[in-house]
Amino acid sequence: MYRNVFFALVLSMSCALPMSAGADEADDKAAIAAVWDSYETARMAGDADAWLALWDEEGVQMPPGMPARGKDVMIGGVPKAFTAMPASAMEIVPVETVILGDMAFSRGTYLAALTVKGNEVNVDGKFMTIFRRQPDGAWKIYRDIFNSNK
Amino acid sequence: MYRNVFFALVLSMSCALPMSAGADEADDKAAIAAVWDSYETARMAGDADAWLALWDEEGVQMPPGMPARGKDVMIGGVPKAFTAMPASAMEIVPVETVILGDMAFSRGTYLAALTVKGNEVNVDGKFMTIFRRQPDGAWKIYRDIFNSNK
Repeated sequence: MYRNVFFALVLSMSCALPMSAGADEADDKAAIAAVWDSYETARMAGDADAWLALWDEEGVQMPPGMPARGKDVMIGGVPKAFTAMPASAMEIVPVETVILGDMAFSRGTYLAALTVKGNEVNVDGKFMTIFRRQPDGAWKIYRDIFNSNK
Repeated sequence: MYRNVFFALVLSMSCALPMSAGADEADDKAAIAAVWDSYETARMAGDADAWLALWDEEGVQMPPGMPARGKDVMIGGVPKAFTAMPASAMEIVPVETVILGDMAFSRGTYLAALTVKGNEVNVDGKFMTIFRRQPDGAWKIYRDIFNSNK
């Protein structure tokens, strides 16, 4: 009896810890890579709604040239920015993605061709992003920061 | 006997998962805050060795204006940069630190007063950093990226 109680206690403790391990990790990494593919597609299409849908409801973006902003501020600013600065090309190259239970970090490089006030501008930079697993299992962007290599 | 084997299996599985929880979390966050204090002190003292000692041996820094660089490249460049651009003030304000087993992320803002070619320059930005727990329990900087708010 004593052993059964202790056994149940150990089981409940282990279940309270993050669940991911081994076989699921490849699925998680593939799901995060697919978010980056969707990010590129949404940005090139100028589809702010599709882009915003990739973010956790409590997401925070930390772009150069402004303070960190929450999703509410992004909703106000991103549609105008996508219209003002269309992207004819964008390539996100994750070089490292590490699953840490219900969070993950992903970092890498990006290239994009933007039109800014009529001029084609090639941007070249790097990023680091925290993803958070949603209740339905989807991974969304929770924290994101990037900067230029130039 | 069957139960004992299964019990041992559950125990070993739970031990393979990240260890942190509850009471230790406050200690981990305090240890990471102390790294940021040491970062400020080392930068203001121009002490590149003390600053480099805060980094994991596999650390990668992602500063604006250059590609990501490993610790070997930092060792070559940081002492010269500290001498060329002394900091009379630096304040790092972590606004969020999340422990994820043997890794953690910390993000926040920073202010610094640098002397660049004889001119005082005030910098104001934000950062996001992954820390990795070392075999001896210390937390070191594993991945770090930052950018300017201006």
